[in-house]
Amino acid sequence: MIDAPTLPATVPSWDELEDLAERLIPALAERGLTVATAESCTGGLISGVLTAISGSSAVVDRGLVTYSNQAKQDLLGVKDETLARHGAVSAEVAAEMASGALANARTDIAVSVTGIAGPGGGSEEKPVGTVHFGLAVKDQETCTFHMVFEKLDRKGVRYSTVLYALLIISNLIKLPKETSRALP
Amino acid sequence: MIDAPTLPATVPSWDELEDLAERLIPALAERGLTVATAESCTGGLISGVLTAISGSSAVVDRGLVTYSNQAKQDLLGVKDETLARHGAVSAEVAAEMASGALANARTDIAVSVTGIAGPGGGSEEKPVGTVHFGLAVKDQETCTFHMVFEKLDRKGVRYSTVLYALLIISNLIKLPKETSRALP
Repeated sequence: MIDAPTLPATVPSWDELEDLAERLIPALAERGLTVATAESCTGGLISGVLTAISGSSAVVDRGLVTYSNQAKQDLLGVKDETLARHGAVSAEVAAEMASGALANARTDIAVSVTGIAGPGGGSEEKPVGTVHFGLAVKDQETCTFHMVFEKLDRKGVRYSTVLYALLIISNLIKLPKETSRALP
Repeated sequence: MIDAPTLPATVPSWDELEDLAERLIPALAERGLTVATAESCTGGLISGVLTAISGSSAVVDRGLVTYSNQAKQDLLGVKDETLARHGAVSAEVAAEMASGALANARTDIAVSVTGIAGPGGGSEEKPVGTVHFGLAVKDQETCTFHMVFEKLDRKGVRYSTVLYALLIISNLIKLPKETSRALP
């Protein structure tokens, strides 16, 4: 559906995330597009940064912070079987989270993240920094992205994950890149 | 149910909010207490700061970021009539949000916030900075708090609101105050 985002070499600051949100929110509003979020490892920071922008209420309808598996099932309709077979941190769960958020919120766009922020919880197969993203768009097939944010602390993984999620939406709407700033 | 929190004179930084969350999460975990959040004007920052702490998954079950009125109704069961009669920024809606989050998440504690972060949206009756908080605790009556965070920008209102919500939970569990830090 869209190109996978490319990230800058350094972890973004919160201010840099807000700068990107400040360009993204009016662009979404101009296009009349609404957004829902479904967050696990970022715990609400994606909706938090989007709503830092005045006027975001025209765009952001709701955010589902589904930290527990039960919450993922209750609020997003993630299937028991998907969690059991693939684990909460998987492309399959990210896809069900995004589709579930779109269905729940009836927005134009829903983005989801599920990952391992660390410092605990990593394994050889899924190291700390593993994050799966889902993107659901009305009348389109849900797609997923996968990143491993290596050698970062918990904040680094979370902030990088927020940036990546914002860039997924930016790419979807073909937000012009701003060359005068550090972020893509 | 609890004493109303008292706030420091200055707006907290994000790091200060994380410092408080870092004391709060283990204290909740030790007591075996789980928490849900229902956020409007803070847009996910309360769940965002709670989940900044490693080990928070034992405490934070879910967060409902209900930015639109429809989301407040869908996810938290806030009544049409309550919204129409009192407006989204009211003690009545804050109470229904907290009770609704507790029912949805089946946690021990749910805290809610609804307010006007500004710079727009204020009125004489409800100026920018007006925030209502709800606290729902299993088998107890839901209570509400009300603050007007005056002369603050959007970030100032939001961060002060996050702090106040964390202090509501701190007071509920009688978290010992830490005198060596700036925050209560």
